[in-house]
Amino acid sequence: MSLGEFDLIDYYFKRDVCVADNGVALGIGDDCAILDIPQGYQLAVSTDSLVCGVHFFADVDPYRLGYKALAVNLSDLAAMGALAKWISLAITLPDGPAFNNDPNWLAEFARGFFELADKYQVNLIGGDTTKGPLSITVSVKGIVPQGAALQRNKAKLGELICVSGDLGDGAVGLAIKLRELSVENNQYFVDALELTEPRIKLGLLLRGLASSCIDISDGLTQDLTHILKASRCSATIDIDALPLSEMLRREMSSGSLSNTLAQQYALTGGDDYELLFTISENKLDQLKQAIAQQSGLMPDITVIGRTTAQQNELIEFYKQNQPVIFATGGWDHFK
Amino acid sequence: MSLGEFDLIDYYFKRDVCVADNGVALGIGDDCAILDIPQGYQLAVSTDSLVCGVHFFADVDPYRLGYKALAVNLSDLAAMGALAKWISLAITLPDGPAFNNDPNWLAEFARGFFELADKYQVNLIGGDTTKGPLSITVSVKGIVPQGAALQRNKAKLGELICVSGDLGDGAVGLAIKLRELSVENNQYFVDALELTEPRIKLGLLLRGLASSCIDISDGLTQDLTHILKASRCSATIDIDALPLSEMLRREMSSGSLSNTLAQQYALTGGDDYELLFTISENKLDQLKQAIAQQSGLMPDITVIGRTTAQQNELIEFYKQNQPVIFATGGWDHFK
Repeated sequence: MSLGEFDLIDYYFKRDVCVADNGVALGIGDDCAILDIPQGYQLAVSTDSLVCGVHFFADVDPYRLGYKALAVNLSDLAAMGALAKWISLAITLPDGPAFNNDPNWLAEFARGFFELADKYQVNLIGGDTTKGPLSITVSVKGIVPQGAALQRNKAKLGELICVSGDLGDGAVGLAIKLRELSVENNQYFVDALELTEPRIKLGLLLRGLASSCIDISDGLTQDLTHILKASRCSATIDIDALPLSEMLRREMSSGSLSNTLAQQYALTGGDDYELLFTISENKLDQLKQAIAQQSGLMPDITVIGRTTAQQNELIEFYKQNQPVIFATGGWDHFK
Repeated sequence: MSLGEFDLIDYYFKRDVCVADNGVALGIGDDCAILDIPQGYQLAVSTDSLVCGVHFFADVDPYRLGYKALAVNLSDLAAMGALAKWISLAITLPDGPAFNNDPNWLAEFARGFFELADKYQVNLIGGDTTKGPLSITVSVKGIVPQGAALQRNKAKLGELICVSGDLGDGAVGLAIKLRELSVENNQYFVDALELTEPRIKLGLLLRGLASSCIDISDGLTQDLTHILKASRCSATIDIDALPLSEMLRREMSSGSLSNTLAQQYALTGGDDYELLFTISENKLDQLKQAIAQQSGLMPDITVIGRTTAQQNELIEFYKQNQPVIFATGGWDHFK
């Protein structure tokens, strides 16, 4: 099979079964897709590229790559409190639908991609398939009620800093893939890295409650700094409050991983794709009630710190109410 | 300068000067851009990738590459009759802002990109810069009044088939770049290839007049076939009516290029980015009046054939009212 652009799109990505009435007036197969934005809503758009050798390994399972390429983009919509609606997919492949000696590579990629697309009822509405070094660029589009988008620049002083789910598992998974680390349950952490769950439903609940929000793609410290810079405030973070998964705690107990290293992964490792947000105390109670009323799995919410005005855009770390800094080998009390 | 994603975006692509009031509620710098779609309008979206070594040469002038990466995408909006509004740009670069030993590579790319963006008043609203083999993926967004988009599947029998501008110059330019051809004025044709003009203004005029429309990116024959298949009709094309530029005719007169080869470039060469559309005779008169009333340069419109019902999705070629086929060496009368 030749890498004819139209063949590839038709064969693997054009599906007659559309998510019903999802605002797609015209889908794949014309110069543009035509989309209906409901009245009173704004459009939320994000684009992310994944490049072979940079963002993933050449031997990555194609099903998982298709899944993750969409997951990381849906995570950006979640961080804005947007409802995911549509996806454009640009994929560049060296040779036909096969890659890495796997004749089913593209079919498996599409299977992973559509599994997540179907789960969140988003439609593939266009894109481009080209020949070249393997890379994937996904552009996601969602809708958000007028003025309700969760931005980075609206955190206020004295608010709680919260995260969803657990931190560090994805970073441990990456270290395992890079052969920098081996623990007892390697596969659990690799799964956390590759089969990340975008927090779309939580993002929708955060609207009107959280004052600012970002998804943790580059690590808690770096992503929190984006909020602090945009909102012109500082933060204190309680190291002991960082939410670590039961599995990560088990590896710490068994000695596969030191506490300090686990905390470092939680603080600075990327690939968590949890939501980091600021919220006032009384609104956190409302959020927890809203979460309790939801059917389906929702991540836990953990308070890990507070916004402060002490010094501009600075994070102060605490352990047992004492300021600490990270020095070679672990946490030292701050002099 | 390192290839920090945020540095690159900020340095070259984030601009305080926004096209005023272009519906950008939130631009570059958050997880998503937030865009306002005016009431009564639909969103038109298209995504195209340009890969080094496939769609352009590694030694391409970066200014021209930036220009063309946007031009080919705007051309898709033009073909839908959409007003261009916003762009997302994903660029993958091997090393920092330099490429091909040119330290100003990215600056020049941005200059070409923004020259065209400013001309058509479109805002860059986001994207991604990543390290890897050079490629560019542009996603354009435009707006079109509800139900007014020019589709491929609405051509009717007995309509005129028209093209804007001239055909074949881009394909001649590509043949020159590939060293398959050399003519007297090589630079003119290379310019036609690299500095293509998206027919955004013409696309807007075609709304309500043309019954179907596509932009010629893969060659007249192939792109016309897309319309015929989508609209379930056939076509006759008058080879002698194909619009050729004065410069192409001059090369034919001087013997640099045979008539047959020039017609082949016009018929099957890609990279023209002119609009190919079907229209009824009386609406063509309305279109010509509308064009005459426009200030600014508008391409000529040429009638090159008609839609027919003779055989499904087939193009019949004519010369001097006689059916012809293309055989080795030129056009033969059809037996």
